[in-house]
Amino acid sequence: MNIDFTFQNPTRIHFGRTAMNHLADELALYGKNVMLVYGKNSIKKTGLYDTVMETLKQCGKSVCELAGINSNPRYTQVLEGCRLVREHNVDLILAVGGGSVIDCSKAIACSAYCDDDPWEHFWIKNLPVPSKVVPVGTILTMTGTASEMNSGSVITNEALRKKEGHIFPMEVASPRFSILNPEFTYSVPKTQMVSGIFDIFSHLMEQYFGGDDDCVSDYLLEGDMLALISASRQALLNPHYYEARSNIMWCATMGLNKILAVSKKQDWEVHQIEHQVGAYCDCPHGIGLAIVSIPYYRLIMPYGLHRFVRFAKNIWHVDPAGKSDLQIATEGIDCLSRFIDELGIPRRLRDVGCTEQMLPLIAASVNKIGGYHVPTTEEVLSILKACY
Amino acid sequence: MNIDFTFQNPTRIHFGRTAMNHLADELALYGKNVMLVYGKNSIKKTGLYDTVMETLKQCGKSVCELAGINSNPRYTQVLEGCRLVREHNVDLILAVGGGSVIDCSKAIACSAYCDDDPWEHFWIKNLPVPSKVVPVGTILTMTGTASEMNSGSVITNEALRKKEGHIFPMEVASPRFSILNPEFTYSVPKTQMVSGIFDIFSHLMEQYFGGDDDCVSDYLLEGDMLALISASRQALLNPHYYEARSNIMWCATMGLNKILAVSKKQDWEVHQIEHQVGAYCDCPHGIGLAIVSIPYYRLIMPYGLHRFVRFAKNIWHVDPAGKSDLQIATEGIDCLSRFIDELGIPRRLRDVGCTEQMLPLIAASVNKIGGYHVPTTEEVLSILKACY
Repeated sequence: MNIDFTFQNPTRIHFGRTAMNHLADELALYGKNVMLVYGKNSIKKTGLYDTVMETLKQCGKSVCELAGINSNPRYTQVLEGCRLVREHNVDLILAVGGGSVIDCSKAIACSAYCDDDPWEHFWIKNLPVPSKVVPVGTILTMTGTASEMNSGSVITNEALRKKEGHIFPMEVASPRFSILNPEFTYSVPKTQMVSGIFDIFSHLMEQYFGGDDDCVSDYLLEGDMLALISASRQALLNPHYYEARSNIMWCATMGLNKILAVSKKQDWEVHQIEHQVGAYCDCPHGIGLAIVSIPYYRLIMPYGLHRFVRFAKNIWHVDPAGKSDLQIATEGIDCLSRFIDELGIPRRLRDVGCTEQMLPLIAASVNKIGGYHVPTTEEVLSILKACY
Repeated sequence: MNIDFTFQNPTRIHFGRTAMNHLADELALYGKNVMLVYGKNSIKKTGLYDTVMETLKQCGKSVCELAGINSNPRYTQVLEGCRLVREHNVDLILAVGGGSVIDCSKAIACSAYCDDDPWEHFWIKNLPVPSKVVPVGTILTMTGTASEMNSGSVITNEALRKKEGHIFPMEVASPRFSILNPEFTYSVPKTQMVSGIFDIFSHLMEQYFGGDDDCVSDYLLEGDMLALISASRQALLNPHYYEARSNIMWCATMGLNKILAVSKKQDWEVHQIEHQVGAYCDCPHGIGLAIVSIPYYRLIMPYGLHRFVRFAKNIWHVDPAGKSDLQIATEGIDCLSRFIDELGIPRRLRDVGCTEQMLPLIAASVNKIGGYHVPTTEEVLSILKACY
């Protein structure tokens, strides 16, 4: 634990089959005007929309709606939300959906009373939040991003063709409460379930692949990875197995509520690359991550060999007997690759709408931050070509 | 994750060599009157007392003191603290010390404006906190209890000869902030260091030994156990090795800030037994836990055999080849026993001031709650005799 840190995560989590029973008590803590934010039609199909509206009505709330949030939420939607918040003097933003809906809601919450252009203010200049930030509560329907218990927000600026994450201050921008009922994730199609699973796994790896030390956080990240692998295999066999889906849901929340990353050097280059892949071809986030991960990790492995050896042994139970470190580490990445196959995730960028012409544009526009190694534009291009 | 839960932990942690730099900013959030709570003379010897008083003075605080808190904090000290809080209209209780000082401070914080007898109100009847609870901040000098990031308080009522834990509501009674500088733990004598280490290990085991499911929390508890074993061995070799002491410190905080225990069936019988051992012979908490653990776990092992097999394989790397579950599980407990020897902890109750005459009195007064098995008075007595 060599890197000093300050940590606080104020979100109150209600987890389980009865989690929705807490909604009315939570709503009672805020004023009358609620903005409901959601995606396309799925919450109407599942009946969750009606349940939530009924509770809001019983609690005497006046409700405005921002619907149709994209899976890669757009800056124009953030601005539309800001307008609604000001127009209706919104006291609480209630996000019902997955990470996209929650990310968009947090962006609106912090941007609504920002005097500048919010993109410029937050995503470019990383300036402080205004004194007035609207509280956010969430009801989660798709698991992966951990947006339900952190203060991050990834937004796509279509005009600039840039998908960019911003981390708002935890104390003001993290959801005040989040309702997590694993049964709400049953209706998510298998493609989105596995996309979410790989998003979680990527969060864990991108926090894990950094640093030389024997940090407590590394052991906890390994625990979360092992739990996720086990639960994912069970969920693939039986998607309505509550134990598996609930474990995946909590692996996700723990995976990026930041408590497993304290004092850690981290990586996050795979997310940087995927963000620009997503900005160009709008592919599901977790799928994009899985596609670029294997060539990325093969590239950086020599720079952090000790950690890749540990990963192979502790996560994939690679037997080290009679093998060089390079062989052990390589076997670990091979196991990761087989896990992606188990999940049934496509392996090529061309499968998710990417064209060869896009590759140099993506490579040039990616933020290069890295962990054990900061990749060059040429190296990013070689990664993209290897999985094109 | 079969057991529904609500989780929120509001404590802000400042961790590392520079953690004290945040003290002034934290103090600025509270009113003028601060009560400083600490133990015997150690913080005066190390100079920490002077540093803290200097900062309090610079921040314009008016300070009253409650000194001399025992390692098993006493109910009479809680009542004295309550009197001081009311007399000086205290705005913040600043606890400087280990778990005893912090437990005592939280008890004072919740009891000061309680109209009933606090022992009766909280520890016996488990009634709600009054509307006025004094905020607590902490500067940690000894690691083990995680009192710095939870709302528990273990107090010894000497008149009743009862040492009893109470869990106040997390939102109001957890420390508002905690300053964790691993270097502050260097001055703790080796006996107290290893006592703290076993306290942490016991917290992890007592959360782990319960339930049949494949809960995420089990994997995370295993991660924390593995990190603790590794760091403890390094600290035994070199007590001033920052990496080791900082890892132990964070293992402790994570070990009982409750985030690794969500959705878990738990045990906590070892703590119940130790509390009464402590009430009779005032032994260091972690030492008492270590002494009773081995006979306790040998007794309950058959009732939760699957979990003890997992413990042996995942924590102690027992090779299961050609062995029965009972053999594997027994080897796991043997490894735990050897770890206690590595720590240099005494193995017998007679070594810590306990007399044979006390054993039946202790056995009769222990709360029987258990995990895989609820022990009878006779079984508790057999455990005590086995380690007498």
